[in-house]
Amino acid sequence: MTASLLITAAQIAEYIGTVAFAVSGAMCAIDRELDLFGVLLLGIITATGGGMLRDVILGATPPAAFIDPVYVLTAAIVSLLVFLVAYIRPERYSRTHETVDRRIDIFDAIGLGIFAVTGAEAAMAAGHGDNLFLCVFMGMNTAVGGGILRDILSMRVPMVLVKHVYALAAIIGALAFCLLVRCLPPALAMFLAAGVTFVIRRLAVRFNWNLPKVRQIQNGK
Amino acid sequence: MTASLLITAAQIAEYIGTVAFAVSGAMCAIDRELDLFGVLLLGIITATGGGMLRDVILGATPPAAFIDPVYVLTAAIVSLLVFLVAYIRPERYSRTHETVDRRIDIFDAIGLGIFAVTGAEAAMAAGHGDNLFLCVFMGMNTAVGGGILRDILSMRVPMVLVKHVYALAAIIGALAFCLLVRCLPPALAMFLAAGVTFVIRRLAVRFNWNLPKVRQIQNGK
Amino acid sequence: MTASLLITAAQIAEYIGTVAFAVSGAMCAIDRELDLFGVLLLGIITATGGGMLRDVILGATPPAAFIDPVYVLTAAIVSLLVFLVAYIRPERYSRTHETVDRRIDIFDAIGLGIFAVTGAEAAMAAGHGDNLFLCVFMGMNTAVGGGILRDILSMRVPMVLVKHVYALAAIIGALAFCLLVRCLPPALAMFLAAGVTFVIRRLAVRFNWNLPKVRQIQNGK
Repeated sequence: MTASLLITAAQIAEYIGTVAFAVSGAMCAIDRELDLFGVLLLGIITATGGGMLRDVILGATPPAAFIDPVYVLTAAIVSLLVFLVAYIRPERYSRTHETVDRRIDIFDAIGLGIFAVTGAEAAMAAGHGDNLFLCVFMGMNTAVGGGILRDILSMRVPMVLVKHVYALAAIIGALAFCLLVRCLPPALAMFLAAGVTFVIRRLAVRFNWNLPKVRQIQNGK
Repeated sequence: MTASLLITAAQIAEYIGTVAFAVSGAMCAIDRELDLFGVLLLGIITATGGGMLRDVILGATPPAAFIDPVYVLTAAIVSLLVFLVAYIRPERYSRTHETVDRRIDIFDAIGLGIFAVTGAEAAMAAGHGDNLFLCVFMGMNTAVGGGILRDILSMRVPMVLVKHVYALAAIIGALAFCLLVRCLPPALAMFLAAGVTFVIRRLAVRFNWNLPKVRQIQNGK
Repeated sequence: MTASLLITAAQIAEYIGTVAFAVSGAMCAIDRELDLFGVLLLGIITATGGGMLRDVILGATPPAAFIDPVYVLTAAIVSLLVFLVAYIRPERYSRTHETVDRRIDIFDAIGLGIFAVTGAEAAMAAGHGDNLFLCVFMGMNTAVGGGILRDILSMRVPMVLVKHVYALAAIIGALAFCLLVRCLPPALAMFLAAGVTFVIRRLAVRFNWNLPKVRQIQNGK
């Protein structure tokens, strides 16, 4: 019973994550002036990319997004809605470019938190629960995978490489889930761990947490 | 017997698709001023990328292009021929840049049609024939996969996101195949369905079919 | 016993290749002005990307880099050391931009040679030893995979497409290993074959070996 509850919680989480990443992908596509179908496609790829990567890496082929149309359909409908809002009221959709960027960031952070958790959970469900490293690393990869695809296809440097505390937030969330699920009901552990990633990521953006960089010596380039 | 005929038809189709995508990849590489080996490599990656993606997603590892050298060899020879034509007669090869672009588009459309069909067929052959969504989605992914790799490696926004009715043509062709194969001989269904994708894609280019876009409010960026 | 020796030699080789690619990835990230975490991440992706691709293509899921933390940890520590050197003494790290590029090239060539060999060896170990094409192609893909990911994520045209005799050096090294391992102890065959790739690649850079290119007719673009 616990197992079936866990699966249900994981599925609900995945739907929410799919919606969040579809919004971020669709907004990104609108930003790049893609047409309606480009918006749908980038929304779908962003929303399902991380999960596909996760399933291929775990050897669970074909990936869930291929077997069950619900993920692709959800992502398509959500992307369509985002497009319609932006199409009908372009002034309200993007008062300033900063507003759009901030909203992409927020939805991205929701997806990041949820997929970090579902990635770790999928690794456990596949029988790798005793390998903490694998579960956490799987969580991180699932969380950042969709966004990397979105950014590469949009021809921009992937968020994961330039944004403050991005992959790190996913790692901490996946780790939190792996520890919390040992003593809490799975659905609660999921919710809390996804929240940890979301909060860390938002705090990093809000307070502009910076990691050190190498000072560039200008010569040539 | 029907099964073996289907496999044969699928293989022949795949050779044609391999040739078409190799031409488009090689032309793309020449366009980016890559040297002979870069041209061969981009031709091979474009021609085999979609099929590799398809096999990995279906769990048919190692992918056919790894087991049977014929795909890589075909793509290499075709790319070499394209290079020789362009090298010996650069004036004739590219009278105008538009000519090159149009030819890349035509070969790309042939590959698109064929891989949409072979992708759907491979999903059926792998026992997923009762899942129409999976077969069609698989067809689309196989069709656009090689071109996405080609475009990302050439550092340009993938055709699939910016060209009119590109992925949509692949979806319609894959769907047509899934329906036609129920009442027609497989080879005929393949030919017709690949033709559907090709014709839709060419019509979209010819008549410049447009999907709506969001009007950009200029501010900042 | 020979088998266990081979595995050991392959593992040692993979550690060395991991270190070399981590250095090249970290230097690349510093060059792109990424922060500490971006440097760690690009180092890890470059170092483990080729091996992950190899394992997914061979169907050996989850890939070794997911099961055994040693690869990710090694890559992370190496990337951290590169970052510290560059951070503490930026003047010494990059006297000129050419110095940095040359060092990235050297470490990349070491990784290229080693992963060409371990890729071919993994294909043999997976029971494909009688398919020479598969082993060599697998070697090439493993060797260039990490670098392609590094370059795409850094938003630059992949080295494999523009550098002289890059993939070709990997192909020759993988082929050399497949032939040498039939008559020499595996560890020695590995060492020699990886050396072949490294030497060819360095000679190509040193003497600026060029392959023909198509002369571009200027019009429009």
